[in-house]
Amino acid sequence: MLPFARVAIIGMGLIGSSLARAIRQAMPTVRLTVTDASDHVRDRVIELGLADDVTDGAGAAVVDADLVILCVPVGAMAAVAAEIGPELAPDSVVSDVGSVKESVLRVLSEALPGAHVIPAHPVAGTEKSGPDAGFGELFRGRWCIITPPPRADQMMVERLGEFWHRLGSKVDLMDAAHHDRVLAVTSHLPHLIAYSIVGTASDMEEVTKSEVIKYSAGGFRDFTRIAASDPVMWRDVFLNNRDAVLELLGRFTEDLVALQRAIRWGEGDALESLFTRTRAIRRSIIDEGQDTDKPDFGR
Amino acid sequence: MLPFARVAIIGMGLIGSSLARAIRQAMPTVRLTVTDASDHVRDRVIELGLADDVTDGAGAAVVDADLVILCVPVGAMAAVAAEIGPELAPDSVVSDVGSVKESVLRVLSEALPGAHVIPAHPVAGTEKSGPDAGFGELFRGRWCIITPPPRADQMMVERLGEFWHRLGSKVDLMDAAHHDRVLAVTSHLPHLIAYSIVGTASDMEEVTKSEVIKYSAGGFRDFTRIAASDPVMWRDVFLNNRDAVLELLGRFTEDLVALQRAIRWGEGDALESLFTRTRAIRRSIIDEGQDTDKPDFGR
Repeated sequence: MLPFARVAIIGMGLIGSSLARAIRQAMPTVRLTVTDASDHVRDRVIELGLADDVTDGAGAAVVDADLVILCVPVGAMAAVAAEIGPELAPDSVVSDVGSVKESVLRVLSEALPGAHVIPAHPVAGTEKSGPDAGFGELFRGRWCIITPPPRADQMMVERLGEFWHRLGSKVDLMDAAHHDRVLAVTSHLPHLIAYSIVGTASDMEEVTKSEVIKYSAGGFRDFTRIAASDPVMWRDVFLNNRDAVLELLGRFTEDLVALQRAIRWGEGDALESLFTRTRAIRRSIIDEGQDTDKPDFGR
Repeated sequence: MLPFARVAIIGMGLIGSSLARAIRQAMPTVRLTVTDASDHVRDRVIELGLADDVTDGAGAAVVDADLVILCVPVGAMAAVAAEIGPELAPDSVVSDVGSVKESVLRVLSEALPGAHVIPAHPVAGTEKSGPDAGFGELFRGRWCIITPPPRADQMMVERLGEFWHRLGSKVDLMDAAHHDRVLAVTSHLPHLIAYSIVGTASDMEEVTKSEVIKYSAGGFRDFTRIAASDPVMWRDVFLNNRDAVLELLGRFTEDLVALQRAIRWGEGDALESLFTRTRAIRRSIIDEGQDTDKPDFGR
């Protein structure tokens, strides 16, 4: 039996369109209704044949859905919730895929008092955007973190877990606030740093932009890949996980200033000792299967 | 005609052993003599059959070489130069593969007043270390930056360029000090930041190390790859390119603090505008062929 029979996806960018493709592959009998705020994206979704129905507005998309998944930037959740609220079927589950969970849980719970609001975050993605960038294998072998509110309907939480499991994900449950602290470390700070360093590099006067690009194989290009991720999505992540990001940024700056001091005073042992410690963490990530051990060329 | 007929490689780690393999493939008639400070590495090089001769000391390796390439950490250059100085053949070229060039040029020129010192830096590598990690294709399609001193013998510089060209590299000439400023941007600062953020993450009390590892696909794992690079090599890079790294680190910290402020005060436009600008730089790197456009899974 399918965990959900009629699924609505609001927002057909990289994640929404990957989700549509993955549902088609894993649960082909699901009735899939989707929409997007952009005319161009909706047209493209029709051309690509990604859903059974493509509606003009979010309200029309959710009318008889038993699972609604909001795949919009975190800052757009409130507006979408206001739009779908009056149209939601009774007992439908409203979930999302945002990278921040506490603010999404609060916004959706306030706007949709009758619905089963169960936020989720598939820890998967690429630096690409839009419906053409999506692919059905995106979630396979990746973690999906579900952050139910304290008094969530356990049956509904299990059905949502089963849904993600069928898309190939490994499923974890977590408190929303803890999720935001964990992801601040594993995702939000790395993105902020990457955006920042790419900005710094492109502002150098003594080193031309073409030199930066030409010799980027030295390490810089890995940052540019991260810093090519969707600008609006990431703006909203930082604005909505402000406290955790600022706290972590404070620690990072402290650590970086300590390294800066070690370089200035020629304290080689301190540098070597940190650089040795970080190597062990890489080893653990490979052992956990979160990345391959295949070396990356051209550093 | 071969640019050099008898090549000595001092240091058989990732780069030295890749160089040996690449020379074998591209110029099989070159007489190749190598050595390494570690007994274990020398034994392994013999087992792998990477050279014609493996000597116990650096002095013995260079005796009749017309090209000597030092593939040791930048901080070990002075000691190796002192060892090989008395044994160098007249008119031999002494080069290296270090990521810092001004200090290497100074150290080698002072220690080897009679030799043709022509430093070089192949902008290539992986996060792996040791003779087993090397491979002959490492330099193919990558830039090799040669930084001759002002009064270098032009014929020797050309021969060294031809040598790297035959290994598959694209060759550039650059002033040593300018090289160090360019690489501070494209390589040294990215590595320092990656080491620092991985250290910060592993020190968090509220987020366990296993959570960091488990959800690293969110961006963090790309930093761990960079932060798995050789600790001694990188310690020496920072100690020997101190001024350029500190200057750049100052700019980076300024930019990061500005971002921090934008997050604290909810200035979404400032964030979005930076995040949009950095995307364009990624595009240029792909257009230049310095990375592929294949999306990276699992962010």
